[in-house]
Amino acid sequence: AQGRKGGVIVGDFFCIILGASPYSIKYKVLGLYFSDGKRRVDYVLTYHIQKSGSTRRQSSKFGDNSFIRRLRRSLSKRSSRAPLQPKEDPEVAAQEHQTDYHEDDKRFKRDEFEENLQKTGLELEKDEGSTIPGVGFLKIHAPWNVLCREAEFMKLKMPTKKVYEVKQGSSVVEKIRMFIHKVTAPLHPKVDTSRAQCQKPLSHPFSREKQHLISGSEWMDGWMDINNIYIFVACDIFIESCFCSQLLYEQWASYSVFYKYQPIGLIRKYFGEKIGLYFAWLGVYTQMLIPAAIIGVIVFLYGCATVDDNIPSMEICDPRNNITMCPLCDQACSYWKLVTACGTARASHLFDNAATVFFSVFMALWAVLFMEHWKRRQMRLNYVWDLTGFGEEEEDHNRAEYEFRVMQKKVKLEHSDLMIIVTFVIVFGVILYRISIRAALHMSSHPVVRYNIRATVKTTAAIINLIIIIILDEIYGAIARWLTRLEVPKTDKSFEERLIFKTFILKFVNAFTPIVYLAFFRGRLVGRPGNYLYVVGSYRMEECAHAGCLMELCIQLCITMLGKQLIQNNLFEIGLPKLKKMLRRRKSEMVSIQEPVPHKTLKRYEKDQLLGPFVGLNPEYMEMIIQFGMVTLFVASFPLAPLFALLNNIIEIRLDAKKFVTELRRPIAAKAKDIGIWYNLLRGLSKVAVIVNAFVIAFTSDFIPRLVYQYMYSPDGTLHGFVNHTLSYFNVTDFDPAFVFFTARYKDYRDPPWSSTKYELSKEFWAILAARLAFVIVFQNVVMLMSDFVDWLIPDIPKDISLQIHKEKILMVELFMKEEQGKRFAARDNQDNCTVPLSANQRPPQPRSRPVSQANCS
Amino acid sequence: AQGRKGGVIVGDFFCIILGASPYSIKYKVLGLYFSDGKRRVDYVLTYHIQKSGSTRRQSSKFGDNSFIRRLRRSLSKRSSRAPLQPKEDPEVAAQEHQTDYHEDDKRFKRDEFEENLQKTGLELEKDEGSTIPGVGFLKIHAPWNVLCREAEFMKLKMPTKKVYEVKQGSSVVEKIRMFIHKVTAPLHPKVDTSRAQCQKPLSHPFSREKQHLISGSEWMDGWMDINNIYIFVACDIFIESCFCSQLLYEQWASYSVFYKYQPIGLIRKYFGEKIGLYFAWLGVYTQMLIPAAIIGVIVFLYGCATVDDNIPSMEICDPRNNITMCPLCDQACSYWKLVTACGTARASHLFDNAATVFFSVFMALWAVLFMEHWKRRQMRLNYVWDLTGFGEEEEDHNRAEYEFRVMQKKVKLEHSDLMIIVTFVIVFGVILYRISIRAALHMSSHPVVRYNIRATVKTTAAIINLIIIIILDEIYGAIARWLTRLEVPKTDKSFEERLIFKTFILKFVNAFTPIVYLAFFRGRLVGRPGNYLYVVGSYRMEECAHAGCLMELCIQLCITMLGKQLIQNNLFEIGLPKLKKMLRRRKSEMVSIQEPVPHKTLKRYEKDQLLGPFVGLNPEYMEMIIQFGMVTLFVASFPLAPLFALLNNIIEIRLDAKKFVTELRRPIAAKAKDIGIWYNLLRGLSKVAVIVNAFVIAFTSDFIPRLVYQYMYSPDGTLHGFVNHTLSYFNVTDFDPAFVFFTARYKDYRDPPWSSTKYELSKEFWAILAARLAFVIVFQNVVMLMSDFVDWLIPDIPKDISLQIHKEKILMVELFMKEEQGKRFAARDNQDNCTVPLSANQRPPQPRSRPVSQANCS
Repeated sequence: AQGRKGGVIVGDFFCIILGASPYSIKYKVLGLYFSDGKRRVDYVLTYHIQKSGSTRRQSSKFGDNSFIRRLRRSLSKRSSRAPLQPKEDPEVAAQEHQTDYHEDDKRFKRDEFEENLQKTGLELEKDEGSTIPGVGFLKIHAPWNVLCREAEFMKLKMPTKKVYEVKQGSSVVEKIRMFIHKVTAPLHPKVDTSRAQCQKPLSHPFSREKQHLISGSEWMDGWMDINNIYIFVACDIFIESCFCSQLLYEQWASYSVFYKYQPIGLIRKYFGEKIGLYFAWLGVYTQMLIPAAIIGVIVFLYGCATVDDNIPSMEICDPRNNITMCPLCDQACSYWKLVTACGTARASHLFDNAATVFFSVFMALWAVLFMEHWKRRQMRLNYVWDLTGFGEEEEDHNRAEYEFRVMQKKVKLEHSDLMIIVTFVIVFGVILYRISIRAALHMSSHPVVRYNIRATVKTTAAIINLIIIIILDEIYGAIARWLTRLEVPKTDKSFEERLIFKTFILKFVNAFTPIVYLAFFRGRLVGRPGNYLYVVGSYRMEECAHAGCLMELCIQLCITMLGKQLIQNNLFEIGLPKLKKMLRRRKSEMVSIQEPVPHKTLKRYEKDQLLGPFVGLNPEYMEMIIQFGMVTLFVASFPLAPLFALLNNIIEIRLDAKKFVTELRRPIAAKAKDIGIWYNLLRGLSKVAVIVNAFVIAFTSDFIPRLVYQYMYSPDGTLHGFVNHTLSYFNVTDFDPAFVFFTARYKDYRDPPWSSTKYELSKEFWAILAARLAFVIVFQNVVMLMSDFVDWLIPDIPKDISLQIHKEKILMVELFMKEEQGKRFAARDNQDNCTVPLSANQRPPQPRSRPVSQANCS
Repeated sequence: AQGRKGGVIVGDFFCIILGASPYSIKYKVLGLYFSDGKRRVDYVLTYHIQKSGSTRRQSSKFGDNSFIRRLRRSLSKRSSRAPLQPKEDPEVAAQEHQTDYHEDDKRFKRDEFEENLQKTGLELEKDEGSTIPGVGFLKIHAPWNVLCREAEFMKLKMPTKKVYEVKQGSSVVEKIRMFIHKVTAPLHPKVDTSRAQCQKPLSHPFSREKQHLISGSEWMDGWMDINNIYIFVACDIFIESCFCSQLLYEQWASYSVFYKYQPIGLIRKYFGEKIGLYFAWLGVYTQMLIPAAIIGVIVFLYGCATVDDNIPSMEICDPRNNITMCPLCDQACSYWKLVTACGTARASHLFDNAATVFFSVFMALWAVLFMEHWKRRQMRLNYVWDLTGFGEEEEDHNRAEYEFRVMQKKVKLEHSDLMIIVTFVIVFGVILYRISIRAALHMSSHPVVRYNIRATVKTTAAIINLIIIIILDEIYGAIARWLTRLEVPKTDKSFEERLIFKTFILKFVNAFTPIVYLAFFRGRLVGRPGNYLYVVGSYRMEECAHAGCLMELCIQLCITMLGKQLIQNNLFEIGLPKLKKMLRRRKSEMVSIQEPVPHKTLKRYEKDQLLGPFVGLNPEYMEMIIQFGMVTLFVASFPLAPLFALLNNIIEIRLDAKKFVTELRRPIAAKAKDIGIWYNLLRGLSKVAVIVNAFVIAFTSDFIPRLVYQYMYSPDGTLHGFVNHTLSYFNVTDFDPAFVFFTARYKDYRDPPWSSTKYELSKEFWAILAARLAFVIVFQNVVMLMSDFVDWLIPDIPKDISLQIHKEKILMVELFMKEEQGKRFAARDNQDNCTVPLSANQRPPQPRSRPVSQANCS
């Protein structure tokens, strides 16, 4: 049986939150109680004992050491008599490898730390004779009054005894709701909701003076907070926790339930609000992908169905139009017949037809709808999880490292601006580097390029691109961390936000540079026959085959999406953790052989060291946001993107669930009201998506030239003659007078050789350019206006929730008014004849010249 | 001496909040106490007594009746035993003129209402033998315990005894701050700030259990809330209030202090947060206009300085260029020489030069900076005014009328969407109506138009336009109110927001239609010589003289801004109130003559009936937001707009101040955290401003054609020959073969008569169009990106405030921890040997299987 709990590692301590194994429900497992057998272990810290001579230090990973940091901070904040100096912070110590503490020094610091813990009222017990050599455990029990005090400080909302009926709206709405609920019943996870859905208890910030109002049984299975960290304080903690994790394993972390909703309430109960919000967000995103995928498939099928009626591709494929084209490259290529581009032309119609424009508009609005839907869902979760009064800023603590640096030398805060510039410089470097890699790749492969193997080469290029993306991704992650650390941000939150922002910028540029290049730069600025543009000496700018750029873009998008997901999911998310776990187990077994201990007597918290540490949600979010970018940014050129994303996410949810439930130490539960900076990044992406899609439709696809031809130049209002119209004439003798006179064609709008302004950009070119630009302006502003309108139309707080909040407030006032009146009548009885109901202890503290109300006593 | 207090009128009751006269500080004025001479009058309601036979009813004006409505609502909410039926609501009664209550019925309802007031603990006294005939007064006294209870419900933050030092940052920053403060000292109003600036008391939500923490003296001069309405509950209410209003009169409501900052703290103390925020916003706006006005004047001066070096106008004014132009209109006009347009061309350079483009970008960023600056200021005020924990939604009550309508018949809530459509239909109607008025005006004036009187005619047209705008403004206000009332919005807040939104849309369209017409439609789509566009039978579309459209736009903007402000300030804001007051006084004197009463014995609240009612802040905000629109939307064509706005606002602030202090009844103080929907409207405007300015520069000014000429067509890279390039050739014989052959010129880009495609739009036209459109895209996206960047760069919460909030939280925790430890040690002393510090009454309510901690007692 495999145990699973969460933990964190720091330089000196190693912390484990007690969870419970989903496999073996043995409540009285060794090590769950203090030695008195009564007080339960709520939290375990571990530290290294140097006696075994091993000097290796547990590595401190990103996001891991928050518990000790927060604990220390709040200790130093509260017990002003014995503050911990920031320079003694273990995290800083871990990073400053030069300073090497002796074992005695360490023990002294540990003792001081433990003393401070005890001062806050916590009870401790040590276990240094562990079966795992070199590791000591410090078990912590949080007594009831400490929990109460912390709950009061946190203004933690607790359900009261007062229960009210949730009004379900008018009967018709209610009937529809019930019907939907009945239909979707198989989609809901089988999680027992003990409370009736139509009843909800009033919540009130916990206060010891108002404890009589708090519902006794409910109060037991809430989360309690100690020094900003939650500890699960149910009296039946192990039963609850085992039950929770068993249920999660069955109803969530299994591929067999892929079609079901996630048990978000349970996830939040077991992992805390922050992780709960991530999975809720992922769920909403996946759900919203379903309609997008369906429409995308329909658009693609429309392309398939109309491919045979498409006049331009018919004209290209018609062998009677014997059109000779200019060579596409310098040495290896020669004049070619347009009819050979028939395949590409037909294929490109699949992704470039009238439905694509509609789909772009749809996806821009879809992104807005998704954001709105998520805002509402988040609001609903905030309400259900009683977070409505919780202020985010409570969590924003100074980073220990910052305090340390400030002590050491004056940190220049102006660093941060500088660092933004450095980030952008690196971004620019990335772009240049990638373009030069492309150029190098193409230059070397150039001589062997022949038209018929073009597609194969493109595919290989795309795959090479993908591999580069994945490798660079890891490098950029490290650069972003390094940059952010240089900045020394002041608070934990700003550190995380800056890190995320930088990582995002770098990874985003990394993922999208080749795509942007293909969409907007490939095949432009190539010059014209006889006057081509040469860069880097004699490298002629690449040209696309007829409609070829769009196809290449599609292939690149397809391979990036599929490949990135396959490799990331399989290799990084399944393979690597499995490998790491195997290594850890082997290592521990090696140690066990040296000092033979029977494996079965391992205590719960000892087993947990074999699990992987929790490295934060950022990689998960990052992966999803890059995917969101793929889905929205270039949807105009690849309508199947939402489908691919959907398929990936269905697997992703269960994969992440499995990882969280069985592979990782149970993470520290953290409170959160929203998904933070990720929301802003999503918003930014959906804004950029509008303009990118406008440009893709206007400049990459042939939509605007077709439209302009149809309404301005076509003799019969159809697309007949369109292909001819897009091709200019070139007199071959102008290139080399030795050639036999004939005219070849090339794809551009230029004046013919017989015009007085030969080979200059023609009037058609400018007219079409104006039309393209006008389209961009209209598209961008119309979609933005529609987005703002949708944003404004949908209220951020769902109506039923705002009604319930309103109702709760009224009920709360009523409850207190009744209490008040009870007191008042009691006071009246005491004072008998006096008309003024002020009882002695309610009188104000001697107002200076206030008329004394008792004067009215008869 | 003139008394001034605020009051509200409703159908049955007439409420007055007691203020104090700024002129005569007589504390023991008659009528300020109950008849016992001890209990002070906190609030006065008035009602009509029918005995004098007069049936006239005090008119109920917008925003006036909120007090009674809110009072009634909270009464019916709290005393569940005797709820007031919504259909008995006096407001509804006032609107339903059909239902005519008898005097007895009214008295019965009044009695019921008074009973409910008493149930909430308020003390009442009637005064029906008033010196003003036909009016009864109901005086209300709110006892101490009622105020305490309400403060607790409201979670009103009160300063505690604990005072802490506000850290002033590093020494250099502090020195600069001090220096700036010293330099600007004469700009600060002479308001005595009794508290040292470097100290601030901790605030804590009021709770009777924690009353010992609340600072005694501070507690006295806070605002108290009763049934959602504030009453000024200082023990020295009259001294405080008189002092306040005296100070306000001297340091705020006087033109002699126009250069000073406003005493915002004092304004908030006297008028409440909502009005305080309005004046703070107006102050920030005016302050921000100073740099904009300076840059605007510099841009204008740059235009003046460079007018003689401007090549295009030099070319136009050069008589050697003997260019003959086609007639601008059909019958009255004939061929004319371009040199006659010399004046207009030179004038238009003042507003159309390279600096204008820079100024447009500057103003777009200025708008963003203004919004950011205001957000920060608002945040700071929220902090200083202890509103940080105050939830806006507390104030959102159902409207009585809505409840009434729901009772009467099922209200269809889908109305609201419909109403938005109706609004837009009306908006469209407005546009059509205005255009047809324009057409009519021009058609009638057409025969007398001669070129040299053109400017005079334009100015007259602009003035006529202005008068139409002002008249229509009033009509549209009424339409918006009517539409919103049809919608029956559910809550007060949504009613107000919908009303504001509709009024804004209508007034905005009204104010900007002529300007938009001039900027974007005048002189376009006119056709070409020989093929003009005719509409409405034979009305030829208006053409502009060379560069004339821009000048007309300038004149229109100038007259609208100056005229609107002059007329609105003088006529509506000074003249009308004075007139109304005179009428009221005369009326009351007429009554006095009938029943002679010595004028001097009038009680305070009786005098207040002579003052005008407070009609809400919406008209003030609306005026300012339309001005903001003028300043930002068309700034590209009129760089002096910020200067005009600045001059107007300096007067406006003092004018409004005078009105609030001396002309109006003292308004009910309302709590508010922000300026609500106005902020969104401002944001919307500054977004629209970007795109409008982009279009003005690209299409209304000649900036892009000049640029294109200089870089694409000019032989020597200068503007020489630009005028010639903008004019096309027309062969007069093509119009009428009877004419002698000569070519006239017209302003357009078309092929010449000798081309194979004669009179078709030329290649230059399309190239310039593409450039114009490209400019719009670049301008819009660059400015939007810069705006977002500025938005992201400036934190919403000022650094010092966020540090102070953080510090306060830590101090608060410390304070409570000390209290806690005191209790704990006391408990330990009681329980003596027991290690567990739980005192008996702190124990949790019997946890089911929690290990009993007392087991640890030694």
